[in-house]
Amino acid sequence: MNSAGVRNLIDNHQPGYSLDQAFYTDQSVLALEWKYIWQRYWLFAGTTADIPKAGDFFTYTVQNDSIIIIRGDKGEVYAHYNTCRHRGSLICLEDHGHAPKLMCPYHQWVYNKDGSLFKARLMPEDFDLTAHGLHPVHVQVVSGFIFISLSDNPPDFKKVMKDYDAFLKPFQVDRAKVAFRKRYELRTNWKLIAENFRECYHCGPAHPEYCSAVIGANLRESTEEILAERRAAWKSKGLETAGVDFENDSFHFAIRYPLRPGVQSYSLDGKAVAIPMGEHKDYDAGVLGLVVYPNFWMDAVSDYMWTMRITPVSPSKTIIDLSWLVDGKAVEGKDYQVDRLVEFWKITGEQDWALCENNFKGIESSHYQPGPYAPVEIDVAKFVDWYLDRMRDGIVETVSA
Amino acid sequence: MNSAGVRNLIDNHQPGYSLDQAFYTDQSVLALEWKYIWQRYWLFAGTTADIPKAGDFFTYTVQNDSIIIIRGDKGEVYAHYNTCRHRGSLICLEDHGHAPKLMCPYHQWVYNKDGSLFKARLMPEDFDLTAHGLHPVHVQVVSGFIFISLSDNPPDFKKVMKDYDAFLKPFQVDRAKVAFRKRYELRTNWKLIAENFRECYHCGPAHPEYCSAVIGANLRESTEEILAERRAAWKSKGLETAGVDFENDSFHFAIRYPLRPGVQSYSLDGKAVAIPMGEHKDYDAGVLGLVVYPNFWMDAVSDYMWTMRITPVSPSKTIIDLSWLVDGKAVEGKDYQVDRLVEFWKITGEQDWALCENNFKGIESSHYQPGPYAPVEIDVAKFVDWYLDRMRDGIVETVSA
Amino acid sequence: MNSAGVRNLIDNHQPGYSLDQAFYTDQSVLALEWKYIWQRYWLFAGTTADIPKAGDFFTYTVQNDSIIIIRGDKGEVYAHYNTCRHRGSLICLEDHGHAPKLMCPYHQWVYNKDGSLFKARLMPEDFDLTAHGLHPVHVQVVSGFIFISLSDNPPDFKKVMKDYDAFLKPFQVDRAKVAFRKRYELRTNWKLIAENFRECYHCGPAHPEYCSAVIGANLRESTEEILAERRAAWKSKGLETAGVDFENDSFHFAIRYPLRPGVQSYSLDGKAVAIPMGEHKDYDAGVLGLVVYPNFWMDAVSDYMWTMRITPVSPSKTIIDLSWLVDGKAVEGKDYQVDRLVEFWKITGEQDWALCENNFKGIESSHYQPGPYAPVEIDVAKFVDWYLDRMRDGIVETVSA
Repeated sequence: MNSAGVRNLIDNHQPGYSLDQAFYTDQSVLALEWKYIWQRYWLFAGTTADIPKAGDFFTYTVQNDSIIIIRGDKGEVYAHYNTCRHRGSLICLEDHGHAPKLMCPYHQWVYNKDGSLFKARLMPEDFDLTAHGLHPVHVQVVSGFIFISLSDNPPDFKKVMKDYDAFLKPFQVDRAKVAFRKRYELRTNWKLIAENFRECYHCGPAHPEYCSAVIGANLRESTEEILAERRAAWKSKGLETAGVDFENDSFHFAIRYPLRPGVQSYSLDGKAVAIPMGEHKDYDAGVLGLVVYPNFWMDAVSDYMWTMRITPVSPSKTIIDLSWLVDGKAVEGKDYQVDRLVEFWKITGEQDWALCENNFKGIESSHYQPGPYAPVEIDVAKFVDWYLDRMRDGIVETVSA
Repeated sequence: MNSAGVRNLIDNHQPGYSLDQAFYTDQSVLALEWKYIWQRYWLFAGTTADIPKAGDFFTYTVQNDSIIIIRGDKGEVYAHYNTCRHRGSLICLEDHGHAPKLMCPYHQWVYNKDGSLFKARLMPEDFDLTAHGLHPVHVQVVSGFIFISLSDNPPDFKKVMKDYDAFLKPFQVDRAKVAFRKRYELRTNWKLIAENFRECYHCGPAHPEYCSAVIGANLRESTEEILAERRAAWKSKGLETAGVDFENDSFHFAIRYPLRPGVQSYSLDGKAVAIPMGEHKDYDAGVLGLVVYPNFWMDAVSDYMWTMRITPVSPSKTIIDLSWLVDGKAVEGKDYQVDRLVEFWKITGEQDWALCENNFKGIESSHYQPGPYAPVEIDVAKFVDWYLDRMRDGIVETVSA
Repeated sequence: MNSAGVRNLIDNHQPGYSLDQAFYTDQSVLALEWKYIWQRYWLFAGTTADIPKAGDFFTYTVQNDSIIIIRGDKGEVYAHYNTCRHRGSLICLEDHGHAPKLMCPYHQWVYNKDGSLFKARLMPEDFDLTAHGLHPVHVQVVSGFIFISLSDNPPDFKKVMKDYDAFLKPFQVDRAKVAFRKRYELRTNWKLIAENFRECYHCGPAHPEYCSAVIGANLRESTEEILAERRAAWKSKGLETAGVDFENDSFHFAIRYPLRPGVQSYSLDGKAVAIPMGEHKDYDAGVLGLVVYPNFWMDAVSDYMWTMRITPVSPSKTIIDLSWLVDGKAVEGKDYQVDRLVEFWKITGEQDWALCENNFKGIESSHYQPGPYAPVEIDVAKFVDWYLDRMRDGIVETVSA
């Protein structure tokens, strides 16, 4: 399918209904998404807790691009395309590592942390080091959360900075500790995961553990009263409570909502699973939920943060990277047990992965037909509208350029 | 290759020779086969012995379509596309299962066995349940053998019904028992399996076990005399003996032929492997062979039936599903042993799978050239003619439409 | 990308720089390479040591073509396409085997070693055996090294014959023994392996074992004096010393170079790993290195030969087949230990496979950019020029044809 075909599908989309099959299964749609969304917006890469010391790095692979994210000598964060300017080899081979300088393993060209070429042995005397630095990638860090953009001219990040700082500061992510990481490779389209995480129509039957922790998740309980009460309590402790509504011309969202009375954390028994994180003094911060389209979801409770990074590999294959962060002073075995820390989201997440994979398989059918969203799926409809608007904008720009 | 290219290959086909390489290896040929054969004709799905009770179901996946085949309350059989009318999820996740009603695992929309939508929670009051039933698939059941058609307007099935009923009735398939199932995934084109099963030029050297059971399979023995004698005996027991010739404008075929004198069943030692099936009183019914193009083969002896369902996945990948059926009253361990029951066709089938995979690999060669069929391969030539006629008809219709 | 697009890339290639991304990753480039290089030039298949006796055969699969290489009754070598002239089945199923005659496993058509059809059972009386022989492949054998060409009109091989005979004769390959074989399947483009094996810019840091055996491989030692001295010694023993320079209108190359003083063989401790090979009387022959583009590399020391056969499967997948040959009279366990024989090249080769796979991954980046070769990479630049010229010639011929 060409751009005109996709444009036609966009124009014929019925508001309030799920997307046409091609948006989930067509390779050329992914190519356009890549161009108009993934290479244009901000992508969550990881946190500064992943790279606490100067020279610590991790790599993030999006489509064919491996990106090096490395900590500078003054705590700053750099991102570079992981391809040597000599003959193109990968420079950093590991997911996580440490390097005083970045040395290509093939012919030992050496780069500084900021990407500039430091040394290239046996090259002619007139070889210009300054013209052969690593290709840079835009970086923004908000309270320890690292976002990159593959765009030459990425959208303004100031509003995210402002909105998120107040929410995130108390967690002291820069001093936090990554207690556990887990990767899943799913046979599904990335948007089906995004959609899944924007509605709780499925939560009641699919997520008994989640519903036992979060009041109202089953869509059968009123939460107004308890929310009002909790908000007052949160405010009195100086916690940010004003959520950030998702606007179609933006790409982020934030909310704080209460756990069920007596529940301290996202855990199977409702009890805390770690010492309070950062500036938190108790287990009473509720849940902080953040979303940055297209690839970032985060849920934080008083004692830990859970981050989800979504990365499409093909229309039918998506990688999910999860991290669990705890307070930087927390000692494993004493202040938290990894098993207890991760079991709640491992169970809940795996319930969702199965739903998303089954959703994809059914959408592959020759007789799949976009169906009507329930009123409680309003945020899915908003995501779909945002997505279609971005795709339309991109196609229109390209055609008129 | 486009339709015109395929049309050209069809027109240039040399009668009596094997097909050109592209028919076996080209993705666009499979797309046309899909349209003009697989989505148009009747496909064997399974038997009512697979779903004895109301609410029993199984799923059959053909290309991207998962089809639910479910038993109704009065013994009737329904088939539906396995994709929810809400957001498209698969509804039935298992190969075989039981469900009083069909409930989508994602948001719990509930469908009746006949596919109509029973309930969709939290939908608006004006939501029209009747407009959101599962998409139906045509079904025909002949003496317990379930055929489906993905066509909106499938070819007449009456002649198959009439021709097969007389042959199949004595087996009482509706009360039979599925004793064993086995799936193979082969690296070959589906037509090479069809061709393999339409000639015994290879049987002598390739199938010693089969030849020791079936007289004449080695093409070196005369069978006329014994066939005439057996036919008289079969008639006297009321068994149908008049075979159904394969006609180019039809799609089915039936034959009854004798086992070697003294051989009771398809087994390694020639002895029966189960109690006689259905109305059979002895082990003297010979072999009943049925074929329905494109995907159904069945061989039945007095004590068991062996069914083969062929399903193309890609030009180079084909799934084979085998079932062994015994009498409904047969008790495992007493009236039959699974090992003994299946070993004859397991051995014989696996000999064929190897031949078909090697055939495909050789056809992939840049120097493969269609070769002449031997006179004893006449039924392969007839299949190939039928196939080419269906493809030509489809292309012509589409062009003139 | 079409031919014109590739032509454009060729014309825009910056001399002295690595190739554009598409040459490594594009499927249509591989299709053109296939046509203009792999199906046109001579490919190393194996040695006569692989098939010592009449009827011994091996198969070599290049793209979709399996080729049978079989020893004739008088020691001659035949090569045939491995596809039966009946219905196309593979005839030889094994990598290595022995057959007095070649019999198709499907319907038992029987071919002579020279490829002529010997017998086809149950065919009509007027069936012409002589018109149904196996499709032949061109073969050339130089001192036991078997080269095939899939071209109808392959380039002249006389110069290779003449140049290589003098170098190879002392090894007596026809009486040699294949002591070990190993296959690797790499995620890289075949040209990156060719490039890797044409420069030692990477050797110092990447290959400590190799550098400890070969003087000058680290590019930090002068070898002129020692080379002059060794050449005199080699000449006095009757060993060929005049290397064959690689010319752009040719496709082969030969060199003899010295091991480090005191080192007898390619081994971890520098000591010999087998009895001297063929006519060699001592461990003083240095290293003989041969290359025939596109797929043959060989390094021989006094006591063993190591051959490398490169075979592309896709732009991103390449198969490497290695063989270690020793003297025909050498007895395993007594005259050589397999482990000791192979460990040097197993270690060195696997260092290279990792480099070539990382190189490919980096080249896949959207920001890969051809970089400048170091002066010591001159032979890589020459290979790249040869490659581009062959591609340009092929495209020009095809366009003007």
